[in-house]
Amino acid sequence: MDRKAVCLLSGGLDSATALAWAQREGYDCYALTFDYGQRHRIELDAAKRVASSLEVKEHLILSLDLRTIGGSALTADIPVPKGRSEAEIGHGIPVTYVPARNTIFLAYALAWAEVLGAEDIVIGVNALDYSGYPDCRPEYIEAFEKMANLATKAGVEGTSRFRIHTPLIKLEKGEIVKKAMEFGVDLSLTWSCYEPAPSGLACGSCDACRLRLKGFRSAGVSDPLKYATILQA
Amino acid sequence: MDRKAVCLLSGGLDSATALAWAQREGYDCYALTFDYGQRHRIELDAAKRVASSLEVKEHLILSLDLRTIGGSALTADIPVPKGRSEAEIGHGIPVTYVPARNTIFLAYALAWAEVLGAEDIVIGVNALDYSGYPDCRPEYIEAFEKMANLATKAGVEGTSRFRIHTPLIKLEKGEIVKKAMEFGVDLSLTWSCYEPAPSGLACGSCDACRLRLKGFRSAGVSDPLKYATILQA
Repeated sequence: MDRKAVCLLSGGLDSATALAWAQREGYDCYALTFDYGQRHRIELDAAKRVASSLEVKEHLILSLDLRTIGGSALTADIPVPKGRSEAEIGHGIPVTYVPARNTIFLAYALAWAEVLGAEDIVIGVNALDYSGYPDCRPEYIEAFEKMANLATKAGVEGTSRFRIHTPLIKLEKGEIVKKAMEFGVDLSLTWSCYEPAPSGLACGSCDACRLRLKGFRSAGVSDPLKYATILQA
Repeated sequence: MDRKAVCLLSGGLDSATALAWAQREGYDCYALTFDYGQRHRIELDAAKRVASSLEVKEHLILSLDLRTIGGSALTADIPVPKGRSEAEIGHGIPVTYVPARNTIFLAYALAWAEVLGAEDIVIGVNALDYSGYPDCRPEYIEAFEKMANLATKAGVEGTSRFRIHTPLIKLEKGEIVKKAMEFGVDLSLTWSCYEPAPSGLACGSCDACRLRLKGFRSAGVSDPLKYATILQA
């Protein structure tokens, strides 16, 4: 039997690793990426490169208008924080939080899964080394899954039982880097930085760069990406 | 204290009545409409007229790309059923079901509510005289509300407790027509038909027209809209 999975793919380290996990598990992967007016649009190119390198069945890029709603440093005119320490990154919910973003993303994934006849949705959230986003926690994912099975024709008629897979949710960043390498992900194709430097390089100081760099450091490997600056841990 | 509510507004009888309910309850209403490539785009004009007539604080029309996902007679090249009996309409989930539509709509409503500082979201779903859509049932709405409070910064930090209001969920169509009139909704501004006749009139035979006409009949009032044809009940 063909097993199809819709895999959310931002183009970052985590989503690329989650997609590679799904491939390893034998799913036919349908990658879903959102162009939501994010500052770091370079990640859309990363998503295309990763999807192509991992040979997904289909890669759908949907345009969403989150800028109209605003409310985040990633979608509105609010500065992206730079140079925060690990302790600061681990504390509280930062201004890069995009209101209800994963709920919107998972809602589209659910719609596409239902149309494709897929039961499985894969998202690379992680609740340990993360930016404090509420919609990356296991209790949120469980509540979404429950809702999804009540929301849909396939769920209600019992023809499908939707599952939200979070293969990275309990991993630290270093473990994610190791998994990515084990799965053969070409990490030079991925992109994490929220706000690239004018040179086009990853800034090295936003929360996303710092978490990524911490991951490579813990894994004991060097990041193939070039950075404008690398702050001390 | 100002109480803000985000009110989903399609431009139909139900959403207009739900919006009027929220106004009556004293909310500052922020109407949210989606241009999702629906066949019956005339409903967008109806939504604008209704929002203006009910004097909402703001009316946001977001463009969504549901056609790319497809899977419904409302968004893909699948014929809209016509002339179905009430028994047929009440049985099973029809091809006009749009996969995960209310989940996508409510996810955006949640995002906008969080940005506005609103705790209340109003949706005119109704589980009695409805088209059999799974995402119109109370158990679905409850599951969404629970998920919403785990998904958001405001929910997690306890600064907001999101509530999804469904003022019409237990009403029959005839009762909704009566409520609309009690609330002073100008029903000539609303639109329900899924696929207007070539003349531009409501077709009178799709499920949406038939449910609407049934509502006016039970309420003992005549529908101010003109129809291309009106089938016998």
